[in-house]
Amino acid sequence: MKIKYNLLHEEKNTKARLGTIETNYGVVETPMFMPVGTRATVKMLTPEELYDVHSGVILANTYHLWLRPGEDLVEKAGGLHKFMNYHGPILTDSGGFQVFSLANPKDITEEGVHFKSHIDGSKLFLTPEKSIQIQNKLDSDIAMSFDECPPASATYEYMKNSIERTLRWAARGKKVHANPRQSLFGIVQGGAYEDLRKFSATETVKLDFDGYSIGGVANDNESKEDMYKAIDYSIPYLPKDKPRYLMGVGEPSDIVEGVIRGIDMFDCVLPTRIARHGNAFTKHGKINIKNAKYKEDFTPIEKDCDCYACRNYTKAYIRHLVNVDESLGGRLLSIHNIRFLIRLTEELREAIKEDRLLEYREEFYKNYHE
Amino acid sequence: MKIKYNLLHEEKNTKARLGTIETNYGVVETPMFMPVGTRATVKMLTPEELYDVHSGVILANTYHLWLRPGEDLVEKAGGLHKFMNYHGPILTDSGGFQVFSLANPKDITEEGVHFKSHIDGSKLFLTPEKSIQIQNKLDSDIAMSFDECPPASATYEYMKNSIERTLRWAARGKKVHANPRQSLFGIVQGGAYEDLRKFSATETVKLDFDGYSIGGVANDNESKEDMYKAIDYSIPYLPKDKPRYLMGVGEPSDIVEGVIRGIDMFDCVLPTRIARHGNAFTKHGKINIKNAKYKEDFTPIEKDCDCYACRNYTKAYIRHLVNVDESLGGRLLSIHNIRFLIRLTEELREAIKEDRLLEYREEFYKNYHE
Repeated sequence: MKIKYNLLHEEKNTKARLGTIETNYGVVETPMFMPVGTRATVKMLTPEELYDVHSGVILANTYHLWLRPGEDLVEKAGGLHKFMNYHGPILTDSGGFQVFSLANPKDITEEGVHFKSHIDGSKLFLTPEKSIQIQNKLDSDIAMSFDECPPASATYEYMKNSIERTLRWAARGKKVHANPRQSLFGIVQGGAYEDLRKFSATETVKLDFDGYSIGGVANDNESKEDMYKAIDYSIPYLPKDKPRYLMGVGEPSDIVEGVIRGIDMFDCVLPTRIARHGNAFTKHGKINIKNAKYKEDFTPIEKDCDCYACRNYTKAYIRHLVNVDESLGGRLLSIHNIRFLIRLTEELREAIKEDRLLEYREEFYKNYHE
Repeated sequence: MKIKYNLLHEEKNTKARLGTIETNYGVVETPMFMPVGTRATVKMLTPEELYDVHSGVILANTYHLWLRPGEDLVEKAGGLHKFMNYHGPILTDSGGFQVFSLANPKDITEEGVHFKSHIDGSKLFLTPEKSIQIQNKLDSDIAMSFDECPPASATYEYMKNSIERTLRWAARGKKVHANPRQSLFGIVQGGAYEDLRKFSATETVKLDFDGYSIGGVANDNESKEDMYKAIDYSIPYLPKDKPRYLMGVGEPSDIVEGVIRGIDMFDCVLPTRIARHGNAFTKHGKINIKNAKYKEDFTPIEKDCDCYACRNYTKAYIRHLVNVDESLGGRLLSIHNIRFLIRLTEELREAIKEDRLLEYREEFYKNYHE
C-alpha cells in the first residue's frame, strides 16, 4: 500500500508537528530519524540491533545497489526487505546525489546524467525513468524522484534552470512508477533563493506526490543559515497531509531546528560514520572515546542511555576496542549514536505533544556544544 | 574456585572421552571448541552472539592484553569477565606462543625472553612469573604455564633442553600463582619425539596442575602426522581426572582426530579468520562465498544449521556483503563458522556417548573434503 501520513498535533509556538506514517511494515511516529543502510546493511548492524534502537524507517541507496548487487538480483531475492531480512519500512533515494558528485556538468543532459562508476570507472547513464524502475525493483516502501542536486554555490540562473528540469524529471519518473506497494516522494530544490524554493515547492506539489523532500541542504559547503532558509522557504507551500523529509541531515542541532521548522523525517550517515572514528554523541556534545581521560572510565557512554552499548559496556572497554582496531568498538558506538538521534526525536515528539518545544530547544543548547 | 573435570564416559573403540568441566561460570561439556577473543573480544561478535552459538569457554591472549590495555586496567575494571561483559568461562594463554614468534633465539634466557613489541618495537621481557602474574590480574578461569614453543624443525638436542627449561619455568610459574579463583594448566612439549613427549608429560604431571595442554602442534610448518604423534605420545601419561587441551588446533578434521586420541579442549582463530576472507565451513568442506555460483543462491550457508546467519540470511546476501566490504558479512560468517565447530563437538559428544565414534569419523570423511 501507499503510505498514509496522519497529522496528530501541531505545536503551539512553532511549525513542528507530531504525526504517524502508516506503511507496509507498521506505523512509525514522526518526527523521526532514519539510519542509513547504503548497501542493504546499516554499517556493522543487524536488523535486530536496528529494532532494538527503535529504528522506524531505514534508508538504502539506489546508486550503490544498482551497481552491486544490481536491482535484478534484489528483485529475484524478493525485494530489499527479504534480501536484507529487515522487517521495517525502507526508503530508497534516487541515486541523484551520488551521480551528481561523479558527473561533469557537461554530462548532465535533459535525458539524464552520464557519469563514471566509482568502482571501475565504467560509463553509466542514469535517467529519471531508470532511477524509478530500479527503485520499483528494489521494492522499497518509499522511493524518491530523480532530481538534480546543484551545488550550494550555483547561480540564480543555473538554479532556476535546474529546478525546472528537476520538475520535468519528477513528472517523467512519476509517469513510469509502477510499484503499487511503493510510495513516491517529490523533491524541492532551489538553494537559498526564496522565490525558487516557492516555485519548486508549488510546482512539485502540483504533481501530487505521496510526500515531499527538501533537497540541496546536505552539500558539504552548505551553511546552517542556508539550510534553515531552504526549509523556511519551502515548508509553507507543502501540504499538511503529507510527510516532509529533509534529506541527508543528522547533526543533533539540525534535527532540533528542522523539527521546529516543520520537518518530519531526517536521515544521515553521521552516527555510523563518526562511530567508526571513535566518536559518540552525548547530551553535552560529541566525545572521542580515544581521549586519554576515558582510559579508566568504567561508566557507560551515557549513564541514562538505554542502548545496548550503554547497558553493557564501559567507556574504558569501548576505548580499548577502538584503540586496538576491533570492529566491536565501532559497532557499539554506532548502536549508541543511532539510538542517541532516535531518542532525540522521541524527546522532540514529547515536547511537541506538550507544546514546550522552544523550552526544549533552550535546554538542548544549554547542554549540547558542537 | 578451581575447575573440576568429571569423566562421564570413555568411548569403547577409541581414546575419546565424554566429560564436563565445572567452572566459576557454569558447567561446560567436553570435548569442546573454544573461540578465540585475542584482545578481549571474539572478533566482530558480542557475548550474546557467543552464548547463541553455545560457546562454553572462550580464549583471550595474555600477550595482547598485557600490551593493550594492560593487565592493571583489566584488574581495575574487575577482571576480564567484567571488562568485556562475558559471563562464561575464559581461558588465557601464557603469551609464550606470541613472544617466541617475535624473539631471536639468542634472546631466550633461563630467566625469560627478551623481545620487541609488535606495536612499537619497544623492548619487552616476559618471564614465567610475569606471565602468571598478568594472568592472575586478568582473572581468567584457566591460566596457562609459560612454555617455550620450539619450532617443529628443532633438533632432538634443542628440544630436550627446551622441555627441561619449560619444566623449570612451569614450576616457577606455579610457585607465584596466587589467584584462588583461577586454575593453572601445565604444557607438554617435545615435538614428534616419543621419548621427549613421555618425559615432558610425566614430569609436568608431577608438578600437579589442574589440567594439561599439548603444545607445539600449531606451528605453521607442522604436519598432521607430527600432530597426531604429539598427541599419541603424550596422552598415555596424562591423568584421567584432568582435562586435556590441544592448543591452537581447529581444522574440523583435526578436531575429529584429536577427540579420537583423547583430547577434551580445542581453540583456534581459524573460524573467525577465514570468515573475514569470505570462507564458510560446511559439512562438505570449506566454501568461499565470493564464488560466482552463489550469486543467485537464496538458500542459507547450510540449510540444517541452527546459527543466526543460517536462520536469517541467504548466501546471495552474505556474498553481496563480502563483495562490497560490509563487515556484517564477516560477522555472519564468523557466527556460522564458530557454530559449525561447536556443532561438530556436539555431534562428537553424541557419538562418544553411543560408542560409534569410528563410524562418525568415516561418515565425516565421506562428506568433508579439505
